[in-house]
Amino acid sequence: MSLLVVGSVALDTVETPFGRAEDALGGSATFFSAASSLFAPVQLVGVVGDDYPVDALRFLGERGVDLAGLEHAPGESFRWSGVYNFDLSSRDTLETRLGVFADFAPKIPEAFRDTELVFLGNIDPELQINVLDQVRRPRFVACDTMNLWIDIKRDRLLDLLKRVDLLLVNDGEARQLSGDFNLSRAARWIMDRGPRYLIIKKGEHGAILFTPTGVFFAPGYPLDEVFDPTGAGDAFAGGFMGHLARCGTSMDDADMRRAVIYGSVLGSYAVEKFSVERFKDLTMEEVEERARAFREMTVFDLPVGAAAGV
Amino acid sequence: MSLLVVGSVALDTVETPFGRAEDALGGSATFFSAASSLFAPVQLVGVVGDDYPVDALRFLGERGVDLAGLEHAPGESFRWSGVYNFDLSSRDTLETRLGVFADFAPKIPEAFRDTELVFLGNIDPELQINVLDQVRRPRFVACDTMNLWIDIKRDRLLDLLKRVDLLLVNDGEARQLSGDFNLSRAARWIMDRGPRYLIIKKGEHGAILFTPTGVFFAPGYPLDEVFDPTGAGDAFAGGFMGHLARCGTSMDDADMRRAVIYGSVLGSYAVEKFSVERFKDLTMEEVEERARAFREMTVFDLPVGAAAGV
Repeated sequence: MSLLVVGSVALDTVETPFGRAEDALGGSATFFSAASSLFAPVQLVGVVGDDYPVDALRFLGERGVDLAGLEHAPGESFRWSGVYNFDLSSRDTLETRLGVFADFAPKIPEAFRDTELVFLGNIDPELQINVLDQVRRPRFVACDTMNLWIDIKRDRLLDLLKRVDLLLVNDGEARQLSGDFNLSRAARWIMDRGPRYLIIKKGEHGAILFTPTGVFFAPGYPLDEVFDPTGAGDAFAGGFMGHLARCGTSMDDADMRRAVIYGSVLGSYAVEKFSVERFKDLTMEEVEERARAFREMTVFDLPVGAAAGV
Repeated sequence: MSLLVVGSVALDTVETPFGRAEDALGGSATFFSAASSLFAPVQLVGVVGDDYPVDALRFLGERGVDLAGLEHAPGESFRWSGVYNFDLSSRDTLETRLGVFADFAPKIPEAFRDTELVFLGNIDPELQINVLDQVRRPRFVACDTMNLWIDIKRDRLLDLLKRVDLLLVNDGEARQLSGDFNLSRAARWIMDRGPRYLIIKKGEHGAILFTPTGVFFAPGYPLDEVFDPTGAGDAFAGGFMGHLARCGTSMDDADMRRAVIYGSVLGSYAVEKFSVERFKDLTMEEVEERARAFREMTVFDLPVGAAAGV
């Protein structure tokens, strides 16, 4: 199925205990499409300034990312810089320069408007709604958001939630949005406002999928080294939506569970190198191998009587 | 199989956002045996002062806990009081009065010395070693510990580790003991020092079992209300060892995984009420029901080609 992503295409300067990357490829649309294009063709809508090293995006094009919706605007590209603490569990933003992103008004090319799957990266909810007004009949819409929008664009965000099938947030955002510390109650609060599905990401502690009929837990993949956590959430979304795009069929709960696993797999690969580097040579064989590792890490059976409900 | 626990039998005064319990049954041996006795008979070794409401322990006896090893010493019983913060994720100890526990020297009754399974609750590693010197040929020994012993009895704790099959600790303790923030590396460090198995408990984020051949993740059970987290770790150990005691056979990796699930189940029930209250009317039907819920929350399949490794 066709898959559209709208989000930021940025240049990140990142410092971790392992080193520093300057003006590296970043942004939600970049990470998302680097991950999802392993599974299926991707349509990207975003904006870069005239300083952007567009040649560096060529590997995306070669992997089936249609960059026809990448707008080139005069001015500076979106730049973010941050530094991670020693255990990589938190980070400080040193600088955010929006540049051309400040005036970003997504224009969905005509050829993209019949897309079946839409991922709305973390941008102003006004713009996310604007994207939904431009696409015709998407089969499944997922969106991300952040603390800033929950703070200053809460009403528009709630308008948006009525129109999406899946919201992906981290645990802090779920708590902030719902005003409830308990994640089970927070999930119900959010799902009462629109999304049939909710994914709460908990970093190294994994991810929780809430569906109309139940809940599914995926662990965090145990890595000996987390090199750079930047983009893990967007890579997760890319693996999730990428799996839905390639499987294409029922989108039932079993598909959603599998998609969470592929999200977790892509998120875990994202952090193994700076920027999108790990995706450049990542193969589907490696993806499937790690998906099997997730199965091996979580599978168990119950004693016969117990399992049968005797 | 026979199952022995050595640990504290205390009186807890606990304050949570939901209320307060004064001089309630507490202590590692109490929580452990309340949980494990649902699965199999349990032998308890501990000490209480002459002020202990021993009648309140009668429900344990009725459930098959042999209290012949519960010493009655002149003086005050071990008392602990603490207050939990609003989200129950941390607590402050208000007071610890060791009383008769200060001079506790576990004496294993002759009838208990051939026990096959041993759980060493969180007491001084000297005493844990002393217990192992008294039992004859246990088939499986598990132990708990805490930050205090890692700090002040590190060498004796490392001596102990050479003699146990399983160490159960929380993530903070695993990091402190190994000096490594990364849990995968911390686990290897610990297992290099003796235990074939390691369980790292992460509270609401679940538990990780490390075995010689792999790793197994169990999620935290999602509860709408966590009433009182006290004793959850010991109830986890009780469910784990209780399952091993009842299944009795191979103790292979599949058994260990199931045991982690039963540990998680009993830990999740422990926090639903103050003290050991929830265990008084808990049934094995409820235990098996929640074990099936854990399965339902974690099960997924992969696309045919991927699952087969094609």
